[in-house]
Amino acid sequence: MSTVVKGRDTAKTAIGNLRSRYLAKTSGLMIVVTDLNDGPNIEADPPHSHPHEQITYVASGEIEVFIRNETTHLIAGDLLTVPPNIPHAIRLLTDNVRLIDAFHPIREDLL
Amino acid sequence: MSTVVKGRDTAKTAIGNLRSRYLAKTSGLMIVVTDLNDGPNIEADPPHSHPHEQITYVASGEIEVFIRNETTHLIAGDLLTVPPNIPHAIRLLTDNVRLIDAFHPIREDLL
Repeated sequence: MSTVVKGRDTAKTAIGNLRSRYLAKTSGLMIVVTDLNDGPNIEADPPHSHPHEQITYVASGEIEVFIRNETTHLIAGDLLTVPPNIPHAIRLLTDNVRLIDAFHPIREDLL
Repeated sequence: MSTVVKGRDTAKTAIGNLRSRYLAKTSGLMIVVTDLNDGPNIEADPPHSHPHEQITYVASGEIEVFIRNETTHLIAGDLLTVPPNIPHAIRLLTDNVRLIDAFHPIREDLL
């Protein structure tokens, strides 16, 4: 079956002050849409890691991404792959950021 | 390794008149950014299918999606899952549409 998640109508999951997400998933694939409206940040979020493969598309705003000792500046339209099990962190450079994160396999911890 | 694909700088792959795409991939995951600037369309594209799992995020514009005998109207911010091996087609409702398609496994035919 096909599933439709209407961005305007779906219930968002709050993930802290001024941050929320919604998602769609199949058996082995997930897209998470995350709105981060508490930027710009002085400091990066704490690094986190997971065994899942990840690709991020920046839908709006700008961020810095920290992976190992590399810092990458991303703007709307950019894509980033995140290797499994490597700590990564972001810092918001603009007031509002929307990230489209694709994961394989599914991030059960986000359901 | 982490890979960065800068949307403004990367070479786009032309896929017909006024359509292009760029992508990023890991071993089992792919995001394809597709710009369709030949809308609005009177008729839908020919249906196509593939064994890959797919989730589409509409970054901008509006489309109709046809799956089996269902028609779904999608606007920016909406998510849609597409089942494997089911023919699906789209019709552009606006001049410009950007779709973010995630696939698992990788669509070798798009490389």
